[in-house]
Amino acid sequence: MTYCVAMALNEGLVFASDSRTNAGVDHISTYRKMRIWQRPGERLVVMLSAGNLAITQEVGALLDLSVRAEDKHRSLMIVDSMHSCARLVGNAVREVHNRDGKHLRETGVEFNASLIIGGQIKGEAPRLFLVYAAGNFIEATPETPYFQIGETKYGKPIIDRVVTIETNLMRAAKCALLSLDSTVRSNVTVGLPIDLLLYRADSFHIATHQLIREDNAYFNTIRHGWGQGLKDLFQVLPDPPWEMEG
Amino acid sequence: MTYCVAMALNEGLVFASDSRTNAGVDHISTYRKMRIWQRPGERLVVMLSAGNLAITQEVGALLDLSVRAEDKHRSLMIVDSMHSCARLVGNAVREVHNRDGKHLRETGVEFNASLIIGGQIKGEAPRLFLVYAAGNFIEATPETPYFQIGETKYGKPIIDRVVTIETNLMRAAKCALLSLDSTVRSNVTVGLPIDLLLYRADSFHIATHQLIREDNAYFNTIRHGWGQGLKDLFQVLPDPPWEMEG
Repeated sequence: MTYCVAMALNEGLVFASDSRTNAGVDHISTYRKMRIWQRPGERLVVMLSAGNLAITQEVGALLDLSVRAEDKHRSLMIVDSMHSCARLVGNAVREVHNRDGKHLRETGVEFNASLIIGGQIKGEAPRLFLVYAAGNFIEATPETPYFQIGETKYGKPIIDRVVTIETNLMRAAKCALLSLDSTVRSNVTVGLPIDLLLYRADSFHIATHQLIREDNAYFNTIRHGWGQGLKDLFQVLPDPPWEMEG
Repeated sequence: MTYCVAMALNEGLVFASDSRTNAGVDHISTYRKMRIWQRPGERLVVMLSAGNLAITQEVGALLDLSVRAEDKHRSLMIVDSMHSCARLVGNAVREVHNRDGKHLRETGVEFNASLIIGGQIKGEAPRLFLVYAAGNFIEATPETPYFQIGETKYGKPIIDRVVTIETNLMRAAKCALLSLDSTVRSNVTVGLPIDLLLYRADSFHIATHQLIREDNAYFNTIRHGWGQGLKDLFQVLPDPPWEMEG
Protein backbone atom coordinates (compact mmCIF):
# COMPACT_ATOMS: atom_id res chain seq x y z
CA MET A 1 0.00 0.00 0.00
CA THR A 2 0.95 3.64 -0.33
CA TYR A 3 -0.11 7.01 0.89
CA CYS A 4 0.60 10.20 -1.06
CA VAL A 5 -0.84 13.69 -0.65
CA ALA A 6 -0.33 16.90 -2.64
CA MET A 7 -1.71 20.40 -2.12
CA ALA A 8 -2.11 23.37 -4.48
CA LEU A 9 -2.02 26.55 -2.36
CA ASN A 10 -1.69 30.24 -3.12
CA GLU A 11 1.92 30.14 -1.95
CA GLY A 12 2.84 27.07 -4.01
CA LEU A 13 2.73 23.29 -4.02
CA VAL A 14 3.32 20.58 -1.41
CA PHE A 15 4.06 16.93 -2.31
CA ALA A 16 4.49 14.14 0.22
CA SER A 17 4.69 10.36 -0.16
CA ASP A 18 5.61 7.34 1.90
CA SER A 19 8.05 4.70 0.61
CA ARG A 20 6.50 1.37 1.48
CA THR A 21 5.53 -1.10 -1.22
CA ASN A 22 4.10 -4.46 -0.44
CA ALA A 23 2.89 -7.65 -1.97
CA GLY A 24 1.61 -9.32 1.17
CA VAL A 25 2.90 -8.39 4.60
CA ASP A 26 5.77 -10.87 4.47
CA HIS A 27 7.18 -9.13 1.41
CA ILE A 28 7.46 -5.41 2.16
CA SER A 29 9.94 -3.27 0.31
CA THR A 30 10.88 0.38 0.18
CA TYR A 31 10.47 2.21 -3.11
CA ARG A 32 10.39 5.92 -3.76
CA LYS A 33 7.04 7.07 -5.13
CA MET A 34 8.01 10.60 -6.13
CA ARG A 35 9.42 11.41 -9.57
CA ILE A 36 10.74 14.86 -10.49
CA TRP A 37 11.42 16.44 -13.87
CA GLN A 38 12.82 19.96 -13.83
CA ARG A 39 14.52 22.69 -15.81
CA PRO A 40 15.40 25.37 -13.22
CA GLY A 41 13.94 28.72 -14.18
CA GLU A 42 11.48 27.21 -16.66
CA ARG A 43 9.54 24.22 -15.28
CA LEU A 44 9.16 21.79 -12.43
CA VAL A 45 6.98 18.67 -12.77
CA VAL A 46 6.43 16.24 -9.87
CA MET A 47 4.58 12.94 -10.02
CA LEU A 48 3.38 10.75 -7.11
CA SER A 49 2.13 7.24 -7.70
CA ALA A 50 0.01 4.62 -5.94
CA GLY A 51 -1.26 1.20 -6.93
CA ASN A 52 0.39 -1.74 -8.66
CA LEU A 53 4.14 -0.99 -8.76
CA ALA A 54 4.67 -2.82 -12.04
CA ILE A 55 2.13 -0.47 -13.64
CA THR A 56 3.30 2.80 -12.09
CA GLN A 57 7.00 2.06 -12.74
CA GLU A 58 6.13 1.37 -16.36
CA VAL A 59 4.22 4.66 -16.58
CA GLY A 60 7.31 6.42 -15.24
CA ALA A 61 9.54 4.57 -17.70
CA LEU A 62 7.36 5.55 -20.67
CA LEU A 63 7.38 9.19 -19.60
CA ASP A 64 11.17 9.12 -19.19
CA LEU A 65 11.53 7.55 -22.62
CA SER A 66 9.64 10.41 -24.27
CA VAL A 67 11.72 12.96 -22.34
CA ARG A 68 14.97 11.33 -23.47
CA ALA A 69 13.70 11.09 -27.06
CA GLU A 70 12.85 14.82 -26.90
CA ASP A 71 9.49 13.91 -28.43
CA LYS A 72 7.88 17.33 -28.71
CA HIS A 73 4.35 15.97 -28.41
CA ARG A 74 5.06 13.55 -25.57
CA SER A 75 7.87 14.92 -23.43
CA LEU A 76 6.97 16.37 -20.03
CA MET A 77 9.96 18.66 -20.57
CA ILE A 78 8.63 20.13 -23.84
CA VAL A 79 4.81 20.38 -23.72
CA ASP A 80 3.65 23.88 -22.78
CA SER A 81 1.07 23.29 -20.04
CA MET A 82 0.51 21.18 -16.93
CA HIS A 83 -2.80 20.12 -18.49
CA SER A 84 -0.79 18.55 -21.32
CA CYS A 85 1.44 16.86 -18.74
CA ALA A 86 -1.64 15.33 -17.09
CA ARG A 87 -2.82 14.09 -20.49
CA LEU A 88 0.61 12.53 -21.14
CA VAL A 89 0.44 10.69 -17.84
CA GLY A 90 -3.08 9.49 -18.70
CA ASN A 91 -1.91 8.32 -22.12
CA ALA A 92 0.99 6.42 -20.55
CA VAL A 93 -1.44 4.70 -18.16
CA ARG A 94 -3.61 3.71 -21.14
CA GLU A 95 -0.58 2.38 -23.02
CA VAL A 96 0.34 0.16 -20.08
CA HIS A 97 -3.29 -0.92 -19.81
CA ASN A 98 -3.40 -1.88 -23.50
CA ARG A 99 -0.29 -3.97 -23.10
CA ASP A 100 -0.77 -5.52 -19.62
CA GLY A 101 -4.47 -5.20 -18.73
CA LYS A 102 -5.61 -8.44 -20.32
CA HIS A 103 -2.78 -10.45 -18.75
CA LEU A 104 -3.43 -8.97 -15.32
CA ARG A 105 -7.11 -9.86 -15.64
CA GLU A 106 -6.22 -13.41 -16.63
CA THR A 107 -4.23 -13.82 -13.40
CA GLY A 108 -6.95 -12.17 -11.30
CA VAL A 109 -5.05 -8.91 -10.71
CA GLU A 110 -6.96 -5.65 -10.96
CA PHE A 111 -5.47 -2.86 -13.11
CA ASN A 112 -4.91 -0.55 -10.17
CA ALA A 113 -3.02 2.73 -10.46
CA SER A 114 -3.55 6.36 -9.51
CA LEU A 115 -1.16 9.22 -9.99
CA ILE A 116 -0.86 12.82 -8.89
CA ILE A 117 0.96 15.17 -11.24
CA GLY A 118 1.65 18.80 -10.47
CA GLY A 119 4.08 21.61 -10.98
CA GLN A 120 4.49 24.79 -12.93
CA ILE A 121 5.53 25.63 -16.48
CA LYS A 122 6.54 29.18 -17.36
CA GLY A 123 3.53 31.04 -18.76
CA GLU A 124 0.95 29.58 -16.40
CA ALA A 125 0.24 29.27 -12.66
CA PRO A 126 1.13 26.16 -10.62
CA ARG A 127 -1.40 23.36 -11.20
CA LEU A 128 -2.19 19.97 -9.72
CA PHE A 129 -3.97 16.96 -11.26
CA LEU A 130 -5.15 13.51 -10.21
CA VAL A 131 -4.96 10.85 -12.94
CA TYR A 132 -7.15 7.73 -12.64
CA ALA A 133 -6.46 4.17 -13.79
CA ALA A 134 -8.67 4.85 -16.83
CA GLY A 135 -6.30 7.64 -17.88
CA ASN A 136 -8.81 10.43 -17.30
CA PHE A 137 -8.05 13.13 -14.75
CA ILE A 138 -9.31 16.00 -12.59
CA GLU A 139 -7.67 19.24 -11.47
CA ALA A 140 -7.49 20.63 -7.92
CA THR A 141 -9.66 23.67 -7.24
CA PRO A 142 -9.58 26.46 -4.63
CA GLU A 143 -12.43 24.71 -2.78
CA THR A 144 -10.65 21.33 -2.72
CA PRO A 145 -6.98 22.23 -2.98
CA TYR A 146 -5.56 18.79 -2.28
CA PHE A 147 -5.46 15.23 -3.62
CA GLN A 148 -4.69 11.96 -1.86
CA ILE A 149 -3.96 8.55 -3.38
CA GLY A 150 -3.52 5.10 -1.84
CA GLU A 151 -4.55 4.58 1.79
CA THR A 152 -6.31 7.93 2.11
CA LYS A 153 -8.82 7.71 4.94
CA TYR A 154 -6.76 7.77 8.13
CA GLY A 155 -4.94 10.94 7.09
CA LYS A 156 -7.90 12.85 5.66
CA PRO A 157 -9.59 14.35 8.76
CA ILE A 158 -6.61 16.51 9.77
CA ILE A 159 -6.25 17.96 6.26
CA ASP A 160 -9.95 18.80 6.12
CA ARG A 161 -9.69 20.57 9.46
CA VAL A 162 -6.61 22.74 8.86
CA VAL A 163 -5.76 23.20 5.17
CA THR A 164 -7.27 25.86 2.91
CA ILE A 165 -5.81 27.51 -0.16
CA GLU A 166 -4.55 30.31 2.13
CA THR A 167 -2.43 27.98 4.29
CA ASN A 168 1.27 28.79 3.96
CA LEU A 169 3.75 26.21 2.69
CA MET A 170 5.47 25.43 6.01
CA ARG A 171 2.18 24.97 7.82
CA ALA A 172 0.85 22.81 4.99
CA ALA A 173 4.04 20.71 5.17
CA LYS A 174 3.47 20.22 8.90
CA CYS A 175 -0.09 19.07 8.15
CA ALA A 176 1.08 16.68 5.42
CA LEU A 177 3.55 15.09 7.86
CA LEU A 178 0.90 14.63 10.55
CA SER A 179 -1.45 13.18 7.92
CA LEU A 180 1.26 10.69 6.94
CA ASP A 181 1.98 9.89 10.59
CA SER A 182 -1.71 9.04 11.23
CA THR A 183 -1.63 6.71 8.23
CA VAL A 184 1.66 5.02 9.15
CA ARG A 185 0.30 4.41 12.68
CA SER A 186 -2.88 2.77 11.37
CA ASN A 187 -1.61 0.77 8.37
CA VAL A 188 1.55 -1.30 8.60
CA THR A 189 1.91 -1.29 4.82
CA VAL A 190 2.51 2.49 4.75
CA GLY A 191 5.96 3.36 6.04
CA LEU A 192 8.87 5.74 6.36
CA PRO A 193 10.95 7.34 4.93
CA ILE A 194 8.74 10.19 3.72
CA ASP A 195 9.61 12.18 0.61
CA LEU A 196 8.51 15.78 1.06
CA LEU A 197 8.91 18.48 -1.56
CA LEU A 198 7.88 22.13 -1.35
CA TYR A 199 7.62 24.42 -4.36
CA ARG A 200 7.11 28.19 -4.13
CA ALA A 201 4.90 29.62 -6.93
CA ASP A 202 6.79 31.32 -9.78
CA SER A 203 10.21 30.24 -8.50
CA PHE A 204 10.70 27.43 -11.05
CA HIS A 205 12.97 25.47 -8.77
CA ILE A 206 12.53 23.25 -5.72
CA ALA A 207 12.24 25.21 -2.46
CA THR A 208 13.17 22.20 -0.35
CA HIS A 209 13.17 18.42 -0.72
CA GLN A 210 13.39 16.47 2.53
CA LEU A 211 13.80 12.74 3.00
CA ILE A 212 12.37 12.10 6.45
CA ARG A 213 13.53 8.97 8.27
CA GLU A 214 12.69 7.53 11.69
CA ASP A 215 15.41 9.62 13.37
CA ASN A 216 14.26 12.97 11.95
CA ALA A 217 14.19 15.34 14.95
CA TYR A 218 11.49 17.67 13.64
CA PHE A 219 9.19 14.84 12.59
CA ASN A 220 9.56 13.19 15.99
CA THR A 221 8.82 16.46 17.77
CA ILE A 222 5.53 16.98 15.97
CA ARG A 223 4.39 13.34 15.95
CA HIS A 224 4.92 13.04 19.70
CA GLY A 225 3.49 16.51 20.34
CA TRP A 226 0.41 15.61 18.31
CA GLY A 227 -0.11 12.24 20.01
CA GLN A 228 0.27 13.66 23.51
CA GLY A 229 -1.79 16.73 22.63
CA LEU A 230 -4.68 14.55 21.43
CA LYS A 231 -4.62 12.55 24.66
CA ASP A 232 -4.53 15.72 26.75
CA LEU A 233 -7.37 17.25 24.75
CA PHE A 234 -9.46 14.09 25.20
CA GLN A 235 -8.91 14.24 28.98
CA VAL A 236 -9.92 17.90 29.15
CA LEU A 237 -13.26 17.41 27.37
CA PRO A 238 -16.08 16.72 29.85
CA ASP A 239 -17.32 13.17 30.46
CA PRO A 240 -21.00 12.42 29.71
CA PRO A 241 -23.46 13.81 32.28
CA TRP A 242 -25.79 10.79 32.11
CA GLU A 243 -27.22 9.06 35.13
CA MET A 244 -26.21 5.40 35.17
CA GLU A 245 -28.38 2.68 36.60
CA GLY A 246 -26.89 -0.34 38.34
CA MET B 1 -23.05 2.96 4.79
CA THR B 2 -22.88 2.48 8.51
CA TYR B 3 -20.48 2.90 11.37
CA CYS B 4 -20.77 0.87 14.58
CA VAL B 5 -18.27 0.39 17.39
CA ALA B 6 -18.37 -1.72 20.56
CA MET B 7 -15.87 -2.07 23.41
CA ALA B 8 -15.35 -4.77 26.05
CA LEU B 9 -13.76 -3.13 29.10
CA ASN B 10 -13.14 -4.19 32.68
CA GLU B 11 -16.02 -1.97 33.80
CA GLY B 12 -18.45 -3.27 31.19
CA LEU B 13 -19.55 -2.87 27.58
CA VAL B 14 -20.08 0.10 25.27
CA PHE B 15 -22.16 -0.08 22.07
CA ALA B 16 -22.59 2.79 19.60
CA SER B 17 -24.07 2.96 16.12
CA ASP B 18 -25.14 5.54 13.60
CA SER B 19 -28.55 5.38 11.92
CA ARG B 20 -27.96 6.14 8.26
CA THR B 21 -28.74 3.58 5.58
CA ASN B 22 -28.28 4.31 1.94
CA ALA B 23 -28.73 2.87 -1.47
CA GLY B 24 -27.06 5.65 -3.43
CA VAL B 25 -26.82 9.19 -2.09
CA ASP B 26 -30.21 10.21 -3.47
CA HIS B 27 -31.90 7.53 -1.38
CA ILE B 28 -30.71 7.88 2.20
CA SER B 29 -32.86 6.64 5.05
CA THR B 30 -32.59 6.36 8.80
CA TYR B 31 -32.73 2.90 10.34
CA ARG B 32 -31.72 1.81 13.79
CA LYS B 33 -28.81 -0.65 13.73
CA MET B 34 -28.92 -1.73 17.37
CA ARG B 35 -31.04 -4.64 18.56
CA ILE B 36 -31.45 -5.54 22.22
CA TRP B 37 -32.65 -8.74 23.89
CA GLN B 38 -32.80 -8.70 27.67
CA ARG B 39 -34.10 -10.38 30.80
CA PRO B 40 -33.21 -8.02 33.64
CA GLY B 41 -31.16 -9.77 36.31
CA GLU B 42 -30.24 -12.67 34.02
CA ARG B 43 -29.00 -11.59 30.58
CA LEU B 44 -28.48 -8.70 28.19
CA VAL B 45 -27.65 -9.30 24.53
CA VAL B 46 -26.96 -6.42 22.10
CA MET B 47 -26.40 -6.73 18.36
CA LEU B 48 -25.06 -4.07 15.95
CA SER B 49 -25.22 -4.58 12.20
CA ALA B 50 -23.58 -3.24 9.05
CA GLY B 51 -23.84 -4.13 5.39
CA ASN B 52 -26.80 -4.92 3.16
CA LEU B 53 -29.92 -3.97 5.12
CA ALA B 54 -32.05 -6.69 3.53
CA ILE B 55 -29.57 -9.25 4.87
CA THR B 56 -29.10 -7.83 8.37
CA GLN B 57 -32.82 -7.24 8.89
CA GLU B 58 -33.47 -10.85 7.89
CA VAL B 59 -30.80 -12.03 10.35
CA GLY B 60 -32.57 -10.04 13.06
CA ALA B 61 -35.93 -11.46 12.02
CA LEU B 62 -34.65 -15.06 12.17
CA LEU B 63 -33.18 -14.48 15.62
CA ASP B 64 -36.45 -12.95 16.84
CA LEU B 65 -38.40 -15.87 15.42
CA SER B 66 -36.36 -18.37 17.47
CA VAL B 67 -36.78 -16.23 20.58
CA ARG B 68 -40.56 -16.11 20.12
CA ALA B 69 -40.68 -19.85 19.43
CA GLU B 70 -38.70 -20.42 22.65
CA ASP B 71 -36.47 -22.77 20.65
CA LYS B 72 -34.06 -23.95 23.33
CA HIS B 73 -31.25 -24.56 20.86
CA ARG B 74 -31.71 -21.36 18.85
CA SER B 75 -33.09 -18.65 21.13
CA LEU B 76 -30.72 -15.89 22.24
CA MET B 77 -32.85 -15.79 25.40
CA ILE B 78 -32.27 -19.46 26.28
CA VAL B 79 -28.74 -20.53 25.26
CA ASP B 80 -26.31 -20.41 28.17
CA SER B 81 -23.29 -18.52 26.80
CA MET B 82 -22.44 -15.51 24.66
CA HIS B 83 -20.33 -17.85 22.54
CA SER B 84 -23.53 -19.73 21.69
CA CYS B 85 -25.21 -16.40 20.87
CA ALA B 86 -22.39 -15.59 18.42
CA ARG B 87 -22.83 -18.99 16.81
CA LEU B 88 -26.61 -18.41 16.49
CA VAL B 89 -25.95 -15.10 14.74
CA GLY B 90 -23.47 -16.83 12.42
CA ASN B 91 -26.00 -19.57 11.67
CA ALA B 92 -28.66 -16.97 10.87
CA VAL B 93 -26.25 -15.23 8.47
CA ARG B 94 -25.60 -18.58 6.75
CA GLU B 95 -29.33 -19.28 6.50
CA VAL B 96 -29.90 -15.95 4.76
CA HIS B 97 -26.91 -16.66 2.53
CA ASN B 98 -28.30 -20.05 1.54
CA ARG B 99 -31.60 -18.48 0.61
CA ASP B 100 -30.52 -15.16 -0.97
CA GLY B 101 -26.83 -15.47 -1.88
CA LYS B 102 -27.35 -16.93 -5.34
CA HIS B 103 -29.98 -14.34 -6.26
CA LEU B 104 -27.82 -11.47 -5.04
CA ARG B 105 -24.92 -12.79 -7.12
CA GLU B 106 -27.15 -13.00 -10.18
CA THR B 107 -27.99 -9.31 -9.85
CA GLY B 108 -24.37 -8.34 -9.19
CA VAL B 109 -24.86 -7.62 -5.47
CA GLU B 110 -22.22 -8.83 -3.04
CA PHE B 111 -23.37 -10.76 0.07
CA ASN B 112 -22.19 -8.08 2.47
CA ALA B 113 -22.94 -8.20 6.20
CA SER B 114 -21.03 -7.89 9.45
CA LEU B 115 -22.43 -7.98 12.94
CA ILE B 116 -21.21 -7.29 16.45
CA ILE B 117 -22.86 -9.25 19.25
CA GLY B 118 -22.09 -8.74 22.90
CA GLY B 119 -23.54 -8.84 26.36
CA GLN B 120 -23.56 -10.96 29.47
CA ILE B 121 -25.38 -14.11 30.55
CA LYS B 122 -25.46 -15.06 34.22
CA GLY B 123 -22.64 -17.51 34.94
CA GLU B 124 -20.03 -15.89 32.74
CA ALA B 125 -18.28 -12.54 32.27
CA PRO B 126 -19.38 -9.95 29.66
CA ARG B 127 -18.19 -10.90 26.17
CA LEU B 128 -18.06 -9.34 22.73
CA PHE B 129 -17.92 -10.98 19.27
CA LEU B 130 -17.59 -9.92 15.64
CA VAL B 131 -19.49 -12.11 13.15
CA TYR B 132 -18.42 -12.11 9.50
CA ALA B 133 -20.52 -12.55 6.34
CA ALA B 134 -19.33 -16.19 6.21
CA GLY B 135 -20.92 -16.80 9.62
CA ASN B 136 -17.61 -17.36 11.41
CA PHE B 137 -16.60 -15.04 14.25
CA ILE B 138 -13.88 -13.74 16.56
CA GLU B 139 -13.95 -12.58 20.18
CA ALA B 140 -12.54 -9.33 21.60
CA THR B 141 -9.41 -9.70 23.77
CA PRO B 142 -7.77 -7.56 26.46
CA GLU B 143 -5.17 -6.47 23.88
CA THR B 144 -7.78 -5.45 21.29
CA PRO B 145 -10.87 -4.70 23.36
CA TYR B 146 -13.00 -3.18 20.59
CA PHE B 147 -14.63 -3.99 17.25
CA GLN B 148 -15.75 -1.69 14.46
CA ILE B 149 -17.97 -2.50 11.48
CA GLY B 150 -18.93 -0.48 8.39
CA GLU B 151 -16.98 2.69 7.60
CA THR B 152 -14.27 2.06 10.19
CA LYS B 153 -11.16 4.00 9.18
CA TYR B 154 -11.95 7.64 9.97
CA GLY B 155 -12.92 6.82 13.54
CA LYS B 156 -10.16 4.33 14.35
CA PRO B 157 -7.17 6.56 15.25
CA ILE B 158 -8.84 8.16 18.29
CA ILE B 159 -9.85 4.77 19.71
CA ASP B 160 -6.32 3.41 19.27
CA ARG B 161 -4.92 6.42 21.09
CA VAL B 162 -7.19 6.53 24.14
CA VAL B 163 -9.02 3.26 24.81
CA THR B 164 -7.58 0.34 26.78
CA ILE B 165 -9.36 -2.31 28.77
CA GLU B 166 -8.87 -0.10 31.86
CA THR B 167 -10.78 2.86 30.40
CA ASN B 168 -13.92 3.58 32.39
CA LEU B 169 -17.37 3.44 30.78
CA MET B 170 -18.05 7.18 30.67
CA ARG B 171 -14.66 7.96 29.15
CA ALA B 172 -15.09 5.15 26.63
CA ALA B 173 -18.53 6.53 25.72
CA LYS B 174 -16.95 9.95 25.12
CA CYS B 175 -14.39 8.30 22.84
CA ALA B 176 -17.07 6.37 20.93
CA LEU B 177 -18.97 9.62 20.30
CA LEU B 178 -15.85 11.41 19.02
CA SER B 179 -15.06 8.40 16.83
CA LEU B 180 -18.58 8.58 15.37
CA ASP B 181 -18.27 12.34 14.90
CA SER B 182 -15.05 11.93 12.87
CA THR B 183 -16.83 9.41 10.67
CA VAL B 184 -19.97 11.49 10.19
CA ARG B 185 -17.80 14.50 9.20
CA SER B 186 -15.90 12.47 6.57
CA ASN B 187 -18.63 10.27 5.09
CA VAL B 188 -22.03 11.70 4.18
CA THR B 189 -23.59 8.23 4.28
CA VAL B 190 -22.95 7.90 8.03
CA GLY B 191 -25.36 10.05 10.02
CA LEU B 192 -27.10 10.95 13.24
CA PRO B 193 -28.92 10.02 15.42
CA ILE B 194 -26.46 7.86 17.35
CA ASP B 195 -27.63 4.94 19.47
CA LEU B 196 -25.38 4.61 22.51
CA LEU B 197 -25.76 1.92 25.15
CA LEU B 198 -23.64 1.36 28.26
CA TYR B 199 -23.67 -1.85 30.29
CA ARG B 200 -21.97 -2.25 33.67
CA ALA B 201 -20.46 -5.72 34.23
CA ASP B 202 -22.53 -8.07 36.41
CA SER B 203 -25.51 -5.68 36.57
CA PHE B 204 -27.65 -7.61 34.06
CA HIS B 205 -29.54 -4.54 32.99
CA ILE B 206 -28.85 -1.51 30.79
CA ALA B 207 -26.93 1.26 32.59
CA THR B 208 -28.00 3.89 30.09
CA HIS B 209 -29.31 4.00 26.53
CA GLN B 210 -29.04 7.39 24.80
CA LEU B 211 -30.42 8.42 21.43
CA ILE B 212 -28.20 11.32 20.40
CA ARG B 213 -29.62 13.79 17.86
CA GLU B 214 -28.20 16.92 16.25
CA ASP B 215 -29.43 19.08 19.15
CA ASN B 216 -27.81 16.99 21.93
CA ALA B 217 -26.05 19.54 24.16
CA TYR B 218 -23.34 17.20 25.45
CA PHE B 219 -22.51 15.83 22.00
CA ASN B 220 -22.25 19.36 20.60
CA THR B 221 -19.98 20.43 23.46
CA ILE B 222 -17.47 17.66 22.83
CA ARG B 223 -17.58 17.72 19.02
CA HIS B 224 -16.93 21.47 18.95
CA GLY B 225 -14.35 21.23 21.75
CA TRP B 226 -12.56 18.47 19.86
CA GLY B 227 -12.58 20.32 16.53
CA GLN B 228 -11.34 23.59 18.04
CA GLY B 229 -8.83 21.75 20.24
CA LEU B 230 -7.32 19.99 17.22
CA LYS B 231 -6.92 23.29 15.39
CA ASP B 232 -5.33 24.92 18.42
CA LEU B 233 -2.98 21.97 18.91
CA PHE B 234 -1.93 22.13 15.27
CA GLN B 235 -1.11 25.85 15.62
CA VAL B 236 0.96 25.25 18.75
CA LEU B 237 3.20 22.60 17.17
CA PRO B 238 6.33 24.15 15.63
CA ASP B 239 6.55 24.75 11.87
CA PRO B 240 9.36 22.98 9.96
CA PRO B 241 12.83 24.48 10.52
CA TRP B 242 13.93 23.95 6.91
CA GLU B 243 15.70 26.58 4.84
CA MET B 244 13.71 27.35 1.71
CA GLU B 245 15.31 28.38 -1.55
CA GLY B 246 13.66 30.84 -3.86
